[in-house]
Amino acid sequence: MKVPEASRKRCVGILAGSGPLPAQVAAAVRARGDDVFVVAFRDFAELPRLAPYPHEVFRLAAAGEILSALKRHGCRELVLIGPVRRPAWRDLRPDGEGARILARLGRAIFLGDDGLLGAVVRVLGEEGFFVRGAHEFLQHATGHSGSQGRVAPDVQARADIARGVAVLRTMARLDIGQGCVVQNGLVLAVEALEGTDAMLGRCGPLMQAGSGGVLVKMPKQGQDLRADMPTIGPETLENAARNGLRGVAFQPGVTLLTDPTRCVAQADRYGLFLYGLTTDDLKE
Amino acid sequence: MKVPEASRKRCVGILAGSGPLPAQVAAAVRARGDDVFVVAFRDFAELPRLAPYPHEVFRLAAAGEILSALKRHGCRELVLIGPVRRPAWRDLRPDGEGARILARLGRAIFLGDDGLLGAVVRVLGEEGFFVRGAHEFLQHATGHSGSQGRVAPDVQARADIARGVAVLRTMARLDIGQGCVVQNGLVLAVEALEGTDAMLGRCGPLMQAGSGGVLVKMPKQGQDLRADMPTIGPETLENAARNGLRGVAFQPGVTLLTDPTRCVAQADRYGLFLYGLTTDDLKE
Repeated sequence: MKVPEASRKRCVGILAGSGPLPAQVAAAVRARGDDVFVVAFRDFAELPRLAPYPHEVFRLAAAGEILSALKRHGCRELVLIGPVRRPAWRDLRPDGEGARILARLGRAIFLGDDGLLGAVVRVLGEEGFFVRGAHEFLQHATGHSGSQGRVAPDVQARADIARGVAVLRTMARLDIGQGCVVQNGLVLAVEALEGTDAMLGRCGPLMQAGSGGVLVKMPKQGQDLRADMPTIGPETLENAARNGLRGVAFQPGVTLLTDPTRCVAQADRYGLFLYGLTTDDLKE
Repeated sequence: MKVPEASRKRCVGILAGSGPLPAQVAAAVRARGDDVFVVAFRDFAELPRLAPYPHEVFRLAAAGEILSALKRHGCRELVLIGPVRRPAWRDLRPDGEGARILARLGRAIFLGDDGLLGAVVRVLGEEGFFVRGAHEFLQHATGHSGSQGRVAPDVQARADIARGVAVLRTMARLDIGQGCVVQNGLVLAVEALEGTDAMLGRCGPLMQAGSGGVLVKMPKQGQDLRADMPTIGPETLENAARNGLRGVAFQPGVTLLTDPTRCVAQADRYGLFLYGLTTDDLKE
């Protein structure tokens, strides 16, 4: 169906992986008066959450179908949001356009997540789309400096946060990890490809004494936030509490809290701090 | 029983954690004609393996009893060998001497493993002991450059090894990790406090495609080998194979193969390479 040019509102395309964020971005786009069209990735996107918005389901590698659908809906702006596991080759089966795009991604497919997702954003740009960061739509959900809830980090926790920041800074040069867990100066765990939840899950038995530990999350320096943003949800707080941590520190403005109110409520409930790094904490 | 000075042979004290290495060091000490006395740490040391050698069982924190026993047996040289989990405070219950030594370890208790174990070696030195590295006794078990078995790393594996070496070099500055897993340039996992086996265990589901991955193990730069050495055993190879890796690379001379013959046999059996890094691989 061809829509006359004049009647067209701006339409933002959302490339939706799993979790609640794609639907939240869709709601935010609608709230500012624009249209939305959701590309729901099969096996990842949570369809019940996306039901209120125009959407179609696609295989990850069906780049040709996806690009046509986005163009058909007049989407010029795109948002990539919600985790998608790096697919195994045998599951890819790209369509014709997909194969062409895979070839253009080239060696980037073998780089770290930054490399791959950054390359996807680059290719989409070359296809004429403007790729936006989800945080541009969800500004209320990117936290603020200092304690978000009732609990504040004490002196030891502040020292652990500082060590975590230093560790993540150094690791960022290697394109590894958006997170680490530090307890009393000791680095218990470093996140590579397994994700934050899996990392937290192994910390319980590694904890020393009863004095807790801190999860520090930060984007890697130079990380393209349009491709990938550190994310914290209520389940992150629950997982942190279950594994004996004392709190979670994150970089405000460039981290998405999937549900800020419930994140703070969970932190308060478990007696954890949920702490936004300050300019001081981030000073080199 | 007091032994007359003249009849005394040299006696090497072995502070024994878990695994087969303490008994192997004991055998090597005997083979060169010296006496041996084993301090077997309760809950860690494997007593059946130590049965052939004079030994006593001690709690980890019973420093007073341990030092007296070592002095009673005339041990001036010590070897710390075999993994010991960092104890929880509540399990420590140090004896009087233990409390004094804990106080001397001070802040080091909260440093990385290097910091803590290095401090233990320092304190033992101050107590008048000469602390030796296990590799001084087990030189035949520290590998050589190049492939130990039938399989050699191919070009992709060599590139992954190079990336692993670069990752471990950078991480060493943070006193983190003696190991990482790299596949096609992508860092799947980084070892912090969980140990190599736990790290390997999470790599299976993280593997991309069918083209394997490489475990790289290296001591941290400046790591005191008398306190802690990278170790590879037949079970490391088995674990690597089970998780879809193509091989294991290590730094020869400063890595202990707990059973070199079986390590090579396992590598050959699973079609893995077991590769000793060359001077070229290690060039900065």
